[in-house]
Amino acid sequence: MEDSRAIILIYSPDQPGLVAAITDFINVNGGNIIRLEQHVDKQENIFFMRVEWDLENFIIPKEKIGEYFQTMYANKYDMTFRLYFNDYKPRMAVFVSKMSHCLFDILARYTAGEWNVEIPLIISNHEDLRWVAEKFGIEYHVLKINKDNKELIEAEQKALLRDYSIDFIVLARYMQILTDDFIREYPNRIINIHHSFLPAFIGAKPYHAAYQRGVKIIGATSHYVTTELDAGPIIEQDITRITHRDSVTDLVRKGQDLEKIVLSHAIEYHINHQVLVYKNKTILFS
Amino acid sequence: MEDSRAIILIYSPDQPGLVAAITDFINVNGGNIIRLEQHVDKQENIFFMRVEWDLENFIIPKEKIGEYFQTMYANKYDMTFRLYFNDYKPRMAVFVSKMSHCLFDILARYTAGEWNVEIPLIISNHEDLRWVAEKFGIEYHVLKINKDNKELIEAEQKALLRDYSIDFIVLARYMQILTDDFIREYPNRIINIHHSFLPAFIGAKPYHAAYQRGVKIIGATSHYVTTELDAGPIIEQDITRITHRDSVTDLVRKGQDLEKIVLSHAIEYHINHQVLVYKNKTILFS
Amino acid sequence: MEDSRAIILIYSPDQPGLVAAITDFINVNGGNIIRLEQHVDKQENIFFMRVEWDLENFIIPKEKIGEYFQTMYANKYDMTFRLYFNDYKPRMAVFVSKMSHCLFDILARYTAGEWNVEIPLIISNHEDLRWVAEKFGIEYHVLKINKDNKELIEAEQKALLRDYSIDFIVLARYMQILTDDFIREYPNRIINIHHSFLPAFIGAKPYHAAYQRGVKIIGATSHYVTTELDAGPIIEQDITRITHRDSVTDLVRKGQDLEKIVLSHAIEYHINHQVLVYKNKTILFS
Amino acid sequence: MEDSRAIILIYSPDQPGLVAAITDFINVNGGNIIRLEQHVDKQENIFFMRVEWDLENFIIPKEKIGEYFQTMYANKYDMTFRLYFNDYKPRMAVFVSKMSHCLFDILARYTAGEWNVEIPLIISNHEDLRWVAEKFGIEYHVLKINKDNKELIEAEQKALLRDYSIDFIVLARYMQILTDDFIREYPNRIINIHHSFLPAFIGAKPYHAAYQRGVKIIGATSHYVTTELDAGPIIEQDITRITHRDSVTDLVRKGQDLEKIVLSHAIEYHINHQVLVYKNKTILFS
Repeated sequence: MEDSRAIILIYSPDQPGLVAAITDFINVNGGNIIRLEQHVDKQENIFFMRVEWDLENFIIPKEKIGEYFQTMYANKYDMTFRLYFNDYKPRMAVFVSKMSHCLFDILARYTAGEWNVEIPLIISNHEDLRWVAEKFGIEYHVLKINKDNKELIEAEQKALLRDYSIDFIVLARYMQILTDDFIREYPNRIINIHHSFLPAFIGAKPYHAAYQRGVKIIGATSHYVTTELDAGPIIEQDITRITHRDSVTDLVRKGQDLEKIVLSHAIEYHINHQVLVYKNKTILFS
Repeated sequence: MEDSRAIILIYSPDQPGLVAAITDFINVNGGNIIRLEQHVDKQENIFFMRVEWDLENFIIPKEKIGEYFQTMYANKYDMTFRLYFNDYKPRMAVFVSKMSHCLFDILARYTAGEWNVEIPLIISNHEDLRWVAEKFGIEYHVLKINKDNKELIEAEQKALLRDYSIDFIVLARYMQILTDDFIREYPNRIINIHHSFLPAFIGAKPYHAAYQRGVKIIGATSHYVTTELDAGPIIEQDITRITHRDSVTDLVRKGQDLEKIVLSHAIEYHINHQVLVYKNKTILFS
Repeated sequence: MEDSRAIILIYSPDQPGLVAAITDFINVNGGNIIRLEQHVDKQENIFFMRVEWDLENFIIPKEKIGEYFQTMYANKYDMTFRLYFNDYKPRMAVFVSKMSHCLFDILARYTAGEWNVEIPLIISNHEDLRWVAEKFGIEYHVLKINKDNKELIEAEQKALLRDYSIDFIVLARYMQILTDDFIREYPNRIINIHHSFLPAFIGAKPYHAAYQRGVKIIGATSHYVTTELDAGPIIEQDITRITHRDSVTDLVRKGQDLEKIVLSHAIEYHINHQVLVYKNKTILFS
Repeated sequence: MEDSRAIILIYSPDQPGLVAAITDFINVNGGNIIRLEQHVDKQENIFFMRVEWDLENFIIPKEKIGEYFQTMYANKYDMTFRLYFNDYKPRMAVFVSKMSHCLFDILARYTAGEWNVEIPLIISNHEDLRWVAEKFGIEYHVLKINKDNKELIEAEQKALLRDYSIDFIVLARYMQILTDDFIREYPNRIINIHHSFLPAFIGAKPYHAAYQRGVKIIGATSHYVTTELDAGPIIEQDITRITHRDSVTDLVRKGQDLEKIVLSHAIEYHINHQVLVYKNKTILFS
């Protein structure tokens, strides 16, 4: 079995001695640092750090680590931190619409055991992908959403998310805009894939817009959803070259390969606690 | 010496028999086709073609080819065409400001003989790069432009462009916005480099905007200048990955390598008559 | 329904009039050219062409087109050609071993209807991926191959391929080396994915070799299988950047995304008859 | 003026407390850490680190830092380290042959002040690029090397390198193979650019080999020179896509853009002390 590990994500005002203090906390208590990355944003004067350490000989009990770190370090250095353990499997819901490519990529990785995650729930506004969910034995709930019933349906969605103890949501080409209320309940816990290299081509039909503009590259962007459309913190982006020979249909087809890979990479970073959000930007410890 | 060649760029409403007709014209008159590319835009129903052929045994005299083609084909098929010969060296002017990286890349290729072009003239609004021009023995004219004297200075610029028989202009990080009048005199003959993957980050300070938005890729775009800012037909684009560790200064530095390569590639496509503009998009025969 | 179309792939010694002759053949018989690409290899002096045309008003019956073209053109110009029709679905078998990522990517595209192909058969030397085949309702045959029974098992494989009327084979990380006899029965009809940017790291364990060498990029290569190991005509390649932080395990994981996308693209080119093989190289009409 | 900074590159057997110890050394003596990166090679069990700190209030005198660090830490933890100061400009010699693209790119960056380096000397076996050196006012020495006079000429080269107090050498498409003796005098201080994605196409004429093999991507690799040809530690690599339409001449042309950018990036990493070599691989702190 894999070792039991802790992961801590920290940010604080930059000041001398932070790295030494944090690594000292782990070392003197018997932890073995597996991976350490830090970054200082000189413009904002903020210190960021991710440390992953082996708990085998760590003398502080797991359930006390957060308390001890808060008391001895976070208060002193004005740190904000989140603590994770690799033996907890985060629970993820997938929201889909009619297109299957992202869902298939997610479920293929999931069933192959690539990710430390549970996917108990798929929610859709269409029946189209029920067969995919059934292939993989995952609950598929259709909640037909429209302008008039949005509040009602989102209430049902939230009930499902609670019932399944969902930690974070992936919009795998869901194609519906969530309400601000919904989004605020899942801060930095809703991952979207947008089919353009944001901030170009925000909103609907980005491939049509890209075709119209005559760009020579198209892209895909995965980001956390915020209340401003397609403007949340970017986790991952990638692009591919196109030519004048590509029709809109070609862009859609070529773009799908980008979308699924970019989204799956973003999910993986999230699952592995490699992403720290600060002021609408991500620090990606990779 | 290289062979004497003709290059024709054509577009017309699509219809059966166009390729056969054009290739027939060249073949029956003794031309040897070196390179042929065609493209049909199914949405617009427009046919595009570029043909390059060896003139050695071509029985129509060079100076009559255009006339013959117009009479026998262009009128009949409603074609728009441009005809070029590889033994004419287009004359190019470079407009610069203070940054040297694009200018150096252009002049290195020029002096190494990579391009079939003459560069007799550099125009700037600053003295900063005179030393570069002098290194390469090229005329350098400083015309200090500002909001109040724009018309006057542009008149002087145009006079210089005429004096040096300039065919096309390259804005190598010129940083000034040309007037609509100026632009209209050089349709599809002013090549700009914009330091973003357009249409993202139009206008001033795109690296600052990219940093602010937290993108994971930055880009550069070379396009023909039209009267709408940064919205002309895109010739070439490229990107590079960045991370949260990159400051604005890092983006500027990394972006410079993109800018110079993208701009030089666009210039090369233009010099080789590989670019056909149709409805604000480029057909790039490459 | 989609239009009925013919696709012809041609090569011949280069000579004047080829494009005119071929397009004339299509035009005068009522065909409407949808797409035409040609290429001349100046070094070898060989002409290559792919033409796709609409058969709706084509006056030569489908089953006679090959004969007519042979009689009137191919003989005259010493052409080698292959003729395809888009209303025939090629039949593809997938050979797999234990890893699922390529198989999933193939089956996801297949069941989503992206490809004009039938996949009736999966062959493996292990039981591991039977569950994947069953999810998608595809026959899965395990034929346990080893050094001593290779001829026998290949005979059984060939019998299966005949029973299912297989046109071409995809080795989706099959990990077994086929005999020369087997390969010769399927010339340019066995597509492999090799997990390196060939010709670097030929043979077994390329990710270990890449790690050992300290490369900064890893790649994947899809190629037609020939009797020389990993040396067949390359259809598609792609790469991704790695760093010193990546372990062999990381390379394997990052490489899998390359492998599946590169292989699927190669399959797509093959299905769409976009690949022409000449002297161990591919002309890719894309 | 820029701050006075120290940069330390360290490796040692991995053990608990290394990060804490090193950061403590800097902090308690009044240093302000600007940038810190560490990496643990789990397979080799080796710890690597690069730290850059501000010397303004550092209480240990510059010339004593190495001694103190050796005494108090390096001995104790079995560390190998190198210490640099940003106020020393490393002195670089460029070896060239006939092609100008890499040299131009280097000199353009140098004269624009992009790099913290002095380039007092260019050595060549041909007169061809003297005019470039003269444009930039740099000494250009022609030492015509051949099989018979290699030892003699290399002795002259070494004398020049000593006269100009050269710290490291850049082979900017030098095209000559150095003797093992020469190489051993400059361990990890000779940077070469090879025009392929190594380890593919080692040795002469890699573009011809790439064309012959029919690859779909070409690359360039910058590495430190070791006594085994094209097998030294890789610093940087990049690639570009090609097609069947590209002749060897096209590959050469497209490859030149790769070569110059890849080489210049490698030089930059070297100048900024971002490269640590361990067992024929580089740790690149970027």
